[in-house]
Amino acid sequence: MAIDLERRPTKKHAVVIGAGFGGLACAKKLRKLDSYSVTLIDRNPYQLFSPLLYQVATASLPEDDIAFPVRTAYQDVQFVRAEVTNIDATKKELILSNGKTISYDDLILAVGSEGTTFGIPGVAEHAFQMKSVSDAREIRHSLLSAYESVEDGLLPLESLNVVIVGGGPTGVELAGAVKELQHEIHREFEHIAPKATVTLLEAGPRLLPTFHPHSSKYTLKTLTKMGVHVQVDAAVVEATPRSLRLKDGREIVAGTRIWAAGVVAPPHWKFLGETDRGNRIKVNSHLQISDSIWIVGDVASSPDGDGRPLPMVAPVAIQQGKHVARQIQRRESSKPLEVFKYRDKGQMATIGRRKAVVEMRSWLRFQGSLAWLTWLALHLAYLSGGRNRTSIFADWIWNYLVWTPRRTIID
Amino acid sequence: MAIDLERRPTKKHAVVIGAGFGGLACAKKLRKLDSYSVTLIDRNPYQLFSPLLYQVATASLPEDDIAFPVRTAYQDVQFVRAEVTNIDATKKELILSNGKTISYDDLILAVGSEGTTFGIPGVAEHAFQMKSVSDAREIRHSLLSAYESVEDGLLPLESLNVVIVGGGPTGVELAGAVKELQHEIHREFEHIAPKATVTLLEAGPRLLPTFHPHSSKYTLKTLTKMGVHVQVDAAVVEATPRSLRLKDGREIVAGTRIWAAGVVAPPHWKFLGETDRGNRIKVNSHLQISDSIWIVGDVASSPDGDGRPLPMVAPVAIQQGKHVARQIQRRESSKPLEVFKYRDKGQMATIGRRKAVVEMRSWLRFQGSLAWLTWLALHLAYLSGGRNRTSIFADWIWNYLVWTPRRTIID
Repeated sequence: MAIDLERRPTKKHAVVIGAGFGGLACAKKLRKLDSYSVTLIDRNPYQLFSPLLYQVATASLPEDDIAFPVRTAYQDVQFVRAEVTNIDATKKELILSNGKTISYDDLILAVGSEGTTFGIPGVAEHAFQMKSVSDAREIRHSLLSAYESVEDGLLPLESLNVVIVGGGPTGVELAGAVKELQHEIHREFEHIAPKATVTLLEAGPRLLPTFHPHSSKYTLKTLTKMGVHVQVDAAVVEATPRSLRLKDGREIVAGTRIWAAGVVAPPHWKFLGETDRGNRIKVNSHLQISDSIWIVGDVASSPDGDGRPLPMVAPVAIQQGKHVARQIQRRESSKPLEVFKYRDKGQMATIGRRKAVVEMRSWLRFQGSLAWLTWLALHLAYLSGGRNRTSIFADWIWNYLVWTPRRTIID
Repeated sequence: MAIDLERRPTKKHAVVIGAGFGGLACAKKLRKLDSYSVTLIDRNPYQLFSPLLYQVATASLPEDDIAFPVRTAYQDVQFVRAEVTNIDATKKELILSNGKTISYDDLILAVGSEGTTFGIPGVAEHAFQMKSVSDAREIRHSLLSAYESVEDGLLPLESLNVVIVGGGPTGVELAGAVKELQHEIHREFEHIAPKATVTLLEAGPRLLPTFHPHSSKYTLKTLTKMGVHVQVDAAVVEATPRSLRLKDGREIVAGTRIWAAGVVAPPHWKFLGETDRGNRIKVNSHLQISDSIWIVGDVASSPDGDGRPLPMVAPVAIQQGKHVARQIQRRESSKPLEVFKYRDKGQMATIGRRKAVVEMRSWLRFQGSLAWLTWLALHLAYLSGGRNRTSIFADWIWNYLVWTPRRTIID
């Protein structure tokens, strides 16, 4: 092979903001383009595998298991740990919180979403969110330390109670896992633990509102059988330091109050253009807001065929991330851009050991053990990095087959 | 089998303070005595496997891996999470920090040791200890976040430097692991990382002073080859917010300063009786200070055959814990008490990948790959709990064979 002595033109620069599902999918594909160098920016040096965050919150998995280090993961992607404060679209420049600037040829915004309290008083102060590793850590601490404080007489019995707001997959998964955790803790705190309750509140008429009503019904029945108090049509109007108050006047007293009731895109990015009610930026059918700015994942408002916004879930983000990388490649080869089309592969939620609901096609729905095994397998498959996969697999073997004590570091 | 309808005499109560190697070994054996109920007290609900703490500090293992949950581990041992503040030997009662009391028939004190600064000015404020999970977490954070801060221009280059005080196994293992961590980080921070240094300071004339001089020499040579600056006869006289000052006037500037230079028993327990210079309580040849109070592990001053105090290491604590359980059993069977004799099985220290020193007998010493494999195997064997063993084994496979990125959660 002859050595190429021609002077190559300087590479173009693609900058991806956000190392979540969408951003990583895009960066991984973009780095294969010879004509581009790729920079990935995130405030954390890891990809958080948020679908398993609830297992960290309930002391089933150590937090390192669901954090995939991105810094050195891809040799041909430059990682920058930073917070982006502004975008100068004219100069094609990002401004970082440390004052530095980074210029780009293509910018991919994939910053994900954050929890929202819908402005309900007290929620921000008196309820835990479920979006970050430190959220999960705080929930775990609250759940576990309550037993010791109650036993020592420092807190009343009601502190063992847990209330979770939001009947989506996160709320359902958390409710089931917290109930199972409580069951295990009974062994040690026999005299106080049986009093502990879990309440799951959903403002709408049914759990898992985006699923088929049949799945909702199965989920309600299963959670109830496990001992979770499920209440639908239960809108929260206030959070206090010891309880949640409902619209109908009732008050649910609980030591741990978790808010899993909805997410919005970060309002910070609204300056980029027109947004919907959830702060999501409206994009064209190629996922662009300009020739050089692409929006991917939860932060993109990209209608499906029916004109409804796509759900804020990992599969949408991944497909969009890949789509954008492909479009940049097409544009470089002077091919016309393609319209983004979401291929819905279904949805699933786990409820507890050997209990889950899976919906793959409108005609392919199943529940129970098989659904649960499907859930396990697909989550393992979606994990980035063989290391985390092995580690979680080993932990699940212990949790589900060997039933060893939970990991219980409490500071 | 006929049901025994006789009224059993009330069981005696053995209380073990401290869920370390000694306390657990004792409790595990005591619970098999029909005539005793056993209570284990610790301020943390886990046994810390401290020989691997340095791997948590250097981002090789997640912290949960080296913490073995004791709360529900042994069904016939009652666990109490508490701090013991006092012992009333006349009433045979413990007083806990929450004001409660626990009465005992036999008390086993196995509270371990803590780091000491030897009163050297600034060390407590400006150097990390290496005794607890939170110590390791702070070191890890300091090591990893320094790179980002230096890259952002927030800290000077010298902040990447690490200085470790103490040439015992902990200091040696840390120095090697920190150097290997620095090498890996080079990949990402190419422009700043090569400037990072590791210095290991030992006040005495050689590393691993309790080992054979041949092992000390091998360790010095190996660490030096790896790029660690080793300085013997280097006594620290002061720690500052950015450096350590030596007796000969030199100053070692480093962003991370780790103190691994010696441990003493907690001074709190000196009220129990005569203690040695390291606050260790002097015990009789059965490890007692009275008929009903036994002292085990680092906190016991129990001379070996030559009249020298035994080393503060896990094997001593384990053998003493078992010995005490056996003596209580003998006393219950009206057999005479036995004198405790330490069976020295040798010592070992790892230096880096495929590098360690092992001393099994005075005539059986070896170094290098075989020593390292021996070290790996013995540490796995000593881990309580199959779960932690599997988990660490998997992590080591990834770390040593597959070389994947480190676990890098930085808050």
